[in-house]
Amino acid sequence: MTLVGTNVEMVGGRAKVAGAVTYVADMEFAGQLYAKALRSPYPHAKLLRIDASKAAALPGVRAVVTRDDLAGLNPYFGTGVEDQPVLVIDKARCVGDIIAAVAADSKEIAEEAITLIEADYEELPAATDILEAAKPGAPLVQERHVDKNAGGNIHGVYRAASGDIEQGFKESDEIIENIYHIPPVQHGHIEPHVVTALWEPSGKLVVHTPSQTPSPLQEQIAKVFQMPLNRVRVIVPFIGGGYGGKNHARIEPVVALLARKARRPVQWILTREEVFYTGRRFGAVVKIKTGFKRDGRLWARKVEAWYDMGAYALSGPANTKNAAIIAGGPYNIPHRDYTTYAVYTNLPPAGPYRGVGASHVCWAYESDLDDIARRCKLDPLEVRLKNLIQENDRFITGETMISVGVSECVKQVAQSIGWNGIAEQEKRSDTIVRGKGLAVAIKSTSTPSTSAASVRLNADGSAILLTSTSDMGQGAQTALAQIVADELALPFERITVTFPDSDITPYDKSTSSSRATFHMGKAAQLAVGQIREQLFQAGAKALEARIEDLELRDSRLQVRGVPERSLTYPQLFKAIYGEAAGSLFGSHTLRTEGGIDAQGHGKGSSFWFYSAAGAEVEVDTETGKVRVLQVASAVDVGKAVHPIQCGLQNDGSALAGLGSALVEEMRYDNGQPINSSFLDYLLPSMLDHPGEFNSMLVETPHPDGPCGAKGMGEAALPPMAPAIGNAIANALSGVRVRDLPVKPHKIVAALSNAKERR
Amino acid sequence: MTLVGTNVEMVGGRAKVAGAVTYVADMEFAGQLYAKALRSPYPHAKLLRIDASKAAALPGVRAVVTRDDLAGLNPYFGTGVEDQPVLVIDKARCVGDIIAAVAADSKEIAEEAITLIEADYEELPAATDILEAAKPGAPLVQERHVDKNAGGNIHGVYRAASGDIEQGFKESDEIIENIYHIPPVQHGHIEPHVVTALWEPSGKLVVHTPSQTPSPLQEQIAKVFQMPLNRVRVIVPFIGGGYGGKNHARIEPVVALLARKARRPVQWILTREEVFYTGRRFGAVVKIKTGFKRDGRLWARKVEAWYDMGAYALSGPANTKNAAIIAGGPYNIPHRDYTTYAVYTNLPPAGPYRGVGASHVCWAYESDLDDIARRCKLDPLEVRLKNLIQENDRFITGETMISVGVSECVKQVAQSIGWNGIAEQEKRSDTIVRGKGLAVAIKSTSTPSTSAASVRLNADGSAILLTSTSDMGQGAQTALAQIVADELALPFERITVTFPDSDITPYDKSTSSSRATFHMGKAAQLAVGQIREQLFQAGAKALEARIEDLELRDSRLQVRGVPERSLTYPQLFKAIYGEAAGSLFGSHTLRTEGGIDAQGHGKGSSFWFYSAAGAEVEVDTETGKVRVLQVASAVDVGKAVHPIQCGLQNDGSALAGLGSALVEEMRYDNGQPINSSFLDYLLPSMLDHPGEFNSMLVETPHPDGPCGAKGMGEAALPPMAPAIGNAIANALSGVRVRDLPVKPHKIVAALSNAKERR
Repeated sequence: MTLVGTNVEMVGGRAKVAGAVTYVADMEFAGQLYAKALRSPYPHAKLLRIDASKAAALPGVRAVVTRDDLAGLNPYFGTGVEDQPVLVIDKARCVGDIIAAVAADSKEIAEEAITLIEADYEELPAATDILEAAKPGAPLVQERHVDKNAGGNIHGVYRAASGDIEQGFKESDEIIENIYHIPPVQHGHIEPHVVTALWEPSGKLVVHTPSQTPSPLQEQIAKVFQMPLNRVRVIVPFIGGGYGGKNHARIEPVVALLARKARRPVQWILTREEVFYTGRRFGAVVKIKTGFKRDGRLWARKVEAWYDMGAYALSGPANTKNAAIIAGGPYNIPHRDYTTYAVYTNLPPAGPYRGVGASHVCWAYESDLDDIARRCKLDPLEVRLKNLIQENDRFITGETMISVGVSECVKQVAQSIGWNGIAEQEKRSDTIVRGKGLAVAIKSTSTPSTSAASVRLNADGSAILLTSTSDMGQGAQTALAQIVADELALPFERITVTFPDSDITPYDKSTSSSRATFHMGKAAQLAVGQIREQLFQAGAKALEARIEDLELRDSRLQVRGVPERSLTYPQLFKAIYGEAAGSLFGSHTLRTEGGIDAQGHGKGSSFWFYSAAGAEVEVDTETGKVRVLQVASAVDVGKAVHPIQCGLQNDGSALAGLGSALVEEMRYDNGQPINSSFLDYLLPSMLDHPGEFNSMLVETPHPDGPCGAKGMGEAALPPMAPAIGNAIANALSGVRVRDLPVKPHKIVAALSNAKERR
Repeated sequence: MTLVGTNVEMVGGRAKVAGAVTYVADMEFAGQLYAKALRSPYPHAKLLRIDASKAAALPGVRAVVTRDDLAGLNPYFGTGVEDQPVLVIDKARCVGDIIAAVAADSKEIAEEAITLIEADYEELPAATDILEAAKPGAPLVQERHVDKNAGGNIHGVYRAASGDIEQGFKESDEIIENIYHIPPVQHGHIEPHVVTALWEPSGKLVVHTPSQTPSPLQEQIAKVFQMPLNRVRVIVPFIGGGYGGKNHARIEPVVALLARKARRPVQWILTREEVFYTGRRFGAVVKIKTGFKRDGRLWARKVEAWYDMGAYALSGPANTKNAAIIAGGPYNIPHRDYTTYAVYTNLPPAGPYRGVGASHVCWAYESDLDDIARRCKLDPLEVRLKNLIQENDRFITGETMISVGVSECVKQVAQSIGWNGIAEQEKRSDTIVRGKGLAVAIKSTSTPSTSAASVRLNADGSAILLTSTSDMGQGAQTALAQIVADELALPFERITVTFPDSDITPYDKSTSSSRATFHMGKAAQLAVGQIREQLFQAGAKALEARIEDLELRDSRLQVRGVPERSLTYPQLFKAIYGEAAGSLFGSHTLRTEGGIDAQGHGKGSSFWFYSAAGAEVEVDTETGKVRVLQVASAVDVGKAVHPIQCGLQNDGSALAGLGSALVEEMRYDNGQPINSSFLDYLLPSMLDHPGEFNSMLVETPHPDGPCGAKGMGEAALPPMAPAIGNAIANALSGVRVRDLPVKPHKIVAALSNAKERR
């Protein structure tokens, strides 16, 4: 490894700085039309009548599509659950559901056309509260996709357990029980959802889209239009941020349908308001009950968590299932019983968001942990270290955990923020108090899953990695190029990594779940391994040496320690093909083992994420205003392929966690979104940026990862909100707000309640 | 084989008919500039001074490049011989040599800028006649690239011989000796040369060009700019005709240089006049002397042929070398001595053209053959059949010839045109006579050579072939898809074949020399073989059957004869990866064996082309006007992958051969081109189209070709001109014009000379 672990120049960095990147919205095709949609104004309503004839007659309108245009298609799509119609068929399930769409010569004409579409609805009672929606008798959002045994709008119930939970609580010295509410939040990717679709004269569909999941997206579009995969081409250039928000087929099918009807390329760029209708982090309610010993040992924990999927499941069931095994955190607890519920509501669809289901339960179990420490009068750091899982411990899934760096993570953040043992509030004035908080998190990655890589070596010693991994700013192309370069002992700039293009690049499950470096990096490494084998065989013959005495070093294959007995790449090609031309190929489809059964047993993740966060805050007890003085995060990355990129991702995660902790929340009034703009919805700005901001990388190598690397993209996020929450509670002598975000009015209310109780 | 051999719908056919193909000239990039060049007005001149400052100062001009901009580059490039400067450095070697180039906001500004460039020359004596140029003492075109032993402008001398030529002539009953002149002709591709080059901010160069040789082109550009191959991306969409004219790097380096200097995309579309300066078929002089027995047996043959390469070699040396072994035709002749000379002249560069060096010598040996038959008073068909090589005969190279269908070819064309034994002139009136003629040809393909293919199978049973084979109208994508589809037992529409894109598609020597179906088809077949192996292994396990009992049939792997014991493709993927997702890969780099040594011995071609043509003409003995009544051609294709495409290619070849025979000729006056437009240069039009036009496909399978296929693209062309020439001579009782094209005034002169001799 000479490049892995170093901070090479980021691929695409210069183009981004120069403003020379062509994002999907920048593309323009000859004859391109512009789309706009009529969306449901109701959270739940039967679509009685739709008449688009006036819109279709408007000059400049080239196509209008409604449910009448779905004949001959598979009209429902989805990743796991096929519950999303291309356009509303029988009823709208959330505000923003697409009723009709128009393609016109200009955006203005398309907008005008939308106003000419007549739609009659019959309003239906709406299920907009998670717990209410989960109850039997609630209005049903998706009649065909609910679990009849669970009742209400529950799509699936997932459970993981170990030990004997009742016995555990009996044996506990004390028990605490709390309920936490976690609201939906926006991904906040700067680039909105945008799709351009066009049909070639041969009948082949080409879709340009900033997708984090080009291969499953291709599968879904192909299924909608009943075409083989090679007739649907999905092309993904640089993505302007994803964060899980671009994980699913959303507007692609309807844009493709418009383009087919118009026989022209159609582009649709969502407005920011429409992005709010299109994706969000699950809202959740987490009930958590923990029994513990007075020495701080966690003894029994029961968690129930309801995840609000909104109107369409997307990956909600899978994410909720994963949440079940991590619902109690990265702790050794003898008796555990965790249950999670995936619930439909009449809200816009939710989906994965930086850490999927982990942030919700982490907010609960890490807030509780500080409360437990406080009850035991112990240092929360010590309580964590006493209970955290260690190398080779068994997890709730029954699996033996390896590459466990969580204790190291929390120790490093503690040191970074100047953790001072049993910290108590630090009074700065009568109303200004300071406090510090810590939190840890565990997160799984999508398991089992498949990633395929193909590498081609050119005769001059340069190589191309064909991969469907999306680069959305995280630097995937850079990291993958580093891994391939090292395997071939080539300089970094001699490796090209493709953008996803389903005609050209092989299958990949997704660029999400922080899985790309681990999965695609390993697949690429194994693909290069096939090339290395051919090089070593040819080199051994040509150099009259044993294969095991050879090494690739400095762009040459040489006898170890005898650099004068070596061959350059062109010489190696000559040895193989008789001329310094041709291509050497290697490819590998990596399918990870694992998955959990109905009891929550199995291998929960092909690798586990561990992270920790620390924060110091200053709280104004009069106004409830919180100032974050410093934050620190540490992630066990296994091996940091590109330390600066890793650090920047952690910084981004930390800042998003800070937003979740203090300000971010998507709000609805009876299912009506009420803050669907960046003006009304609050994102942390540079003014909210903490004075100190420290990202640390712990490296506990993973045997299955490329060069020991694990994933890391999202891992710093889940513990950040509870670290800030714990810092606030610490500042307020244990007074705690359990519903995110921790806004000033909630602090004031909590302090006032606490005073009353005293 | 269920698809190979059938006439599936041509890939891209609908798009072409719909006018929806994006050729390079149709592409437009943001900020694109337009190029224009100042070209040498002299065939040979020192460039004393060049001052482009006024041009550079013209508003709208973004870059001007001259020899002063070559610092830091390898300024000379070429396929074999690096003798072409990016721009003229010390001297211009032909009219049209690029002295300077401009990139401007519009074509008009670029044109104006060119007029502002000041260039001073010192004229040099020019070598413009092939035989004069070949003589010692001729003005030297390329001082550094001539063969000092051969003298003059001879770059290389190539020889093939067998038997004892002097002894052979002694043993002959009769000897005839003739000289034939073959002029340069234009390729006549409708799409001119056009290149768009742009540099990405990372410093990577992207070149869009209709190239028949994307991989060698990429190598040459990379060498000029001293970059690794992965930093030069060559992308080739559909080509609007090539015919060998787009086989070489020509204007790509200078356009790339302009784009680098301007920091903007630059497009250059050549005018038709400029195309005439850029490429042409070699002119040639062929001296041929043949000894034969009175029974028509060919006994000894000596050929000397001079090929005029023009100012730059391109593939001239390789083509001239190949011509040496086929200079005497596809005949068994006990004593042979063939020599060819690659000669530089101060004419615009020549290069391969549909049949490379084969047409020139074929015109000579097939004209002579009819003269020999006439002397022997034998049927020219019989004389051919008596001497033609047969299966397992040894060729001049020493190799044993296989898959030899030439006799069958000539028999079929004879039958097609109603060959009537010892044909004699048929008088229609006092001045109108009719005659028939036959000819055969042999041609090699570029040997040895390399083609790599990579195939990816999708889980739904659809596949992508990654290949750098260019589709220039010949239907390569269609034929390759047929081959891959059959290997996977998939429907045709489930196979996608890529366009060449050096970032993505593997190495290929060229789409020329009629080599694509044989080489790339075989490479693709072998690549699929790797996938089949994986499928059969997994299938054998899952179906509990022996691999040898399995077959792929109708998109399923099944136990032979037991269709109910079968697996679909998704099921096979599930058996391999645990889910119906992922990619299966196969790839193969095919390197053919062969090549000939300095004595002309070895394996001359990875497969041999055999073809025949027949023609019936009507000649007006008063005016010399020739009307072609019918033509027929037959090519031994091994296996016709797509019979209609094969037939259409043969029709095109036949028509081009007719043009060469009767009208086409690029003319120079002391090195000055004088017919550089389609108005002045004559191409056969629909009016020249023969009344009857018959293409036949002979199928003598080749063991090394995919499904037995050989190449065929160019094979029908070489024999067409001599067939027409023989028909004319037949009509004129043996009076013959030996210099192409056979224009009316030459016929009148020949008849008048013959009368005088009588």
